[in-house]
Amino acid sequence: MAADAASNTREVYGDAPLVGAIEAGGTKFVCAIGNGPEAGLLARQEFPTGDDPQRTIREVIGWLEAESRRVGSIRALGVASFGPVELDASSPRYGWITTTPKPGWRDTDIVGPLRRAFPGLPIGFDTDVNGAALGEGRWGAARGLEDFVYITVGTGIGGGGVARGKLLHGLVHPEMGHFPMPVLDGDSFAGSCRFHGRCWEGLCAGPAIAARAGRPAGELAADDPAWELTARYMAHAFATLTYVLSPRKIIFGGSVRKAGKLGEARFLAMIRRHFRGVLNGYIASPMLEEGGIDQFIVPPALGDDAGVCGAIALAHDALAAW
Amino acid sequence: MAADAASNTREVYGDAPLVGAIEAGGTKFVCAIGNGPEAGLLARQEFPTGDDPQRTIREVIGWLEAESRRVGSIRALGVASFGPVELDASSPRYGWITTTPKPGWRDTDIVGPLRRAFPGLPIGFDTDVNGAALGEGRWGAARGLEDFVYITVGTGIGGGGVARGKLLHGLVHPEMGHFPMPVLDGDSFAGSCRFHGRCWEGLCAGPAIAARAGRPAGELAADDPAWELTARYMAHAFATLTYVLSPRKIIFGGSVRKAGKLGEARFLAMIRRHFRGVLNGYIASPMLEEGGIDQFIVPPALGDDAGVCGAIALAHDALAAW
Repeated sequence: MAADAASNTREVYGDAPLVGAIEAGGTKFVCAIGNGPEAGLLARQEFPTGDDPQRTIREVIGWLEAESRRVGSIRALGVASFGPVELDASSPRYGWITTTPKPGWRDTDIVGPLRRAFPGLPIGFDTDVNGAALGEGRWGAARGLEDFVYITVGTGIGGGGVARGKLLHGLVHPEMGHFPMPVLDGDSFAGSCRFHGRCWEGLCAGPAIAARAGRPAGELAADDPAWELTARYMAHAFATLTYVLSPRKIIFGGSVRKAGKLGEARFLAMIRRHFRGVLNGYIASPMLEEGGIDQFIVPPALGDDAGVCGAIALAHDALAAW
Repeated sequence: MAADAASNTREVYGDAPLVGAIEAGGTKFVCAIGNGPEAGLLARQEFPTGDDPQRTIREVIGWLEAESRRVGSIRALGVASFGPVELDASSPRYGWITTTPKPGWRDTDIVGPLRRAFPGLPIGFDTDVNGAALGEGRWGAARGLEDFVYITVGTGIGGGGVARGKLLHGLVHPEMGHFPMPVLDGDSFAGSCRFHGRCWEGLCAGPAIAARAGRPAGELAADDPAWELTARYMAHAFATLTYVLSPRKIIFGGSVRKAGKLGEARFLAMIRRHFRGVLNGYIASPMLEEGGIDQFIVPPALGDDAGVCGAIALAHDALAAW
């Protein structure tokens, strides 16, 4: 497979340099060597995140060393990590996972061990969702756009984004899953976020849908009212993103969008309809009207590879800035 | 005065070029010639916005022509305008006020008449709040920061911002006053926004406070519960901005912040306290703790000149990009 993929790569991605990519998720680390999506992934491996960071990082480094000997030497590394992370390059904790509640992972240096294992290699580092946004911008649904957001709704909700061509950073980095939300008529659910109750994540993430319905989202019938309610909440949240950031596109990733028995296409159609209702014509743009809206709220073009491809893009950017 | 100011200017602002500035507001147009705030404003004049755009624009142009002959020729123009406006430089409607409900002003070309009156002069154009953000970034409360927002709460609510050093644009531009909000316990007010009812503007702008209380905010006693309620809503809205954008500072301008008999300092202290309560420790940053928070939510350092100074900054940027 490596030989085929390598020849594809030369066709599809030309001379883009080979890099190592790490999507550091809360459940698993997805690692790859490549220079772009699909044919550009020459090797790929997953490791459980676990509760022993040193062990996981050691496994990742070992795999990258072995695979880069096998498929070709890498020119940079990219890491798209669960957070919160330290993105301030002037901080002594740059490249760390910081105040995560995830057992074992609080205050874990991610970039440091990679630097020591691959001395002299540029390393790009950002949040998982910023990475996915970057990947979708380079190869996916946001190609050619300077302003867009990438949202993942799964076990939790996170969002990253690009404004005027640059990833959103700031005081820390966006934590889009946690803004306050209106409570919709007839919803007595108290919310599942242990910090905020009824923030977006507390109302719409997988565990919230399951807790409200009394069973996992995957078991809900296609016409279960939970889908309509969740779509209405999603519409309100996407309206908030639209008013604050004015994105040219909202890319909606994560497992919840697949919407079990209802299916992704129908769930997205519901969200788009409610979203237009929430905006109520306030923002005038053809993208928000019938005919445009299907290209405004979209699933990731890279599917579940958005994150690892984003890590490749982070590596490429780190190399370019070297 | 012009002579004194000119000599001050040379001291304080060195060789920054003289430019024309227009803060195009819904009530008045504030025009100036200068190269920075305070001593840098060599001439200043206000014109009512009215309902006849051609007349207002003609007055503004006439004043700029006369004053630039008097105090010194200008090298660029900057316009910070109420909106919505068209910011896409490739659009034939670039530099227009577009779908505003303001009588007479829908689909008004602002930049075009200025270009014809001042041929060959670079013209910067952006929203009033983006302009104010830029001004605060250059000379005010956000000096040296790459990520921050500027909010104005008055007759309406608007917000602009800078991310990674660039003004937020996008599909249209941010319309931060209109995101959905939770309804707080005991508040039966239906909201005053004619598009969204209980969006941020519908709950917290001057008309909303007056409609809920039955009299203007300026007449409310310092201990009127309306202040506490408004502060709680503001805290939720600032939390939303913090989660979506991760600003390093929120600059809170506009008349409502002055809070009548309560006063700005006490109103801001209320908002900061509730804001920390809403975040509930989710984002770890010294800026969000006691000791930092007073520098995180702040009034504009340029006061009510943030907008016109922002127009000067827009002019300087247009000149630099020329």
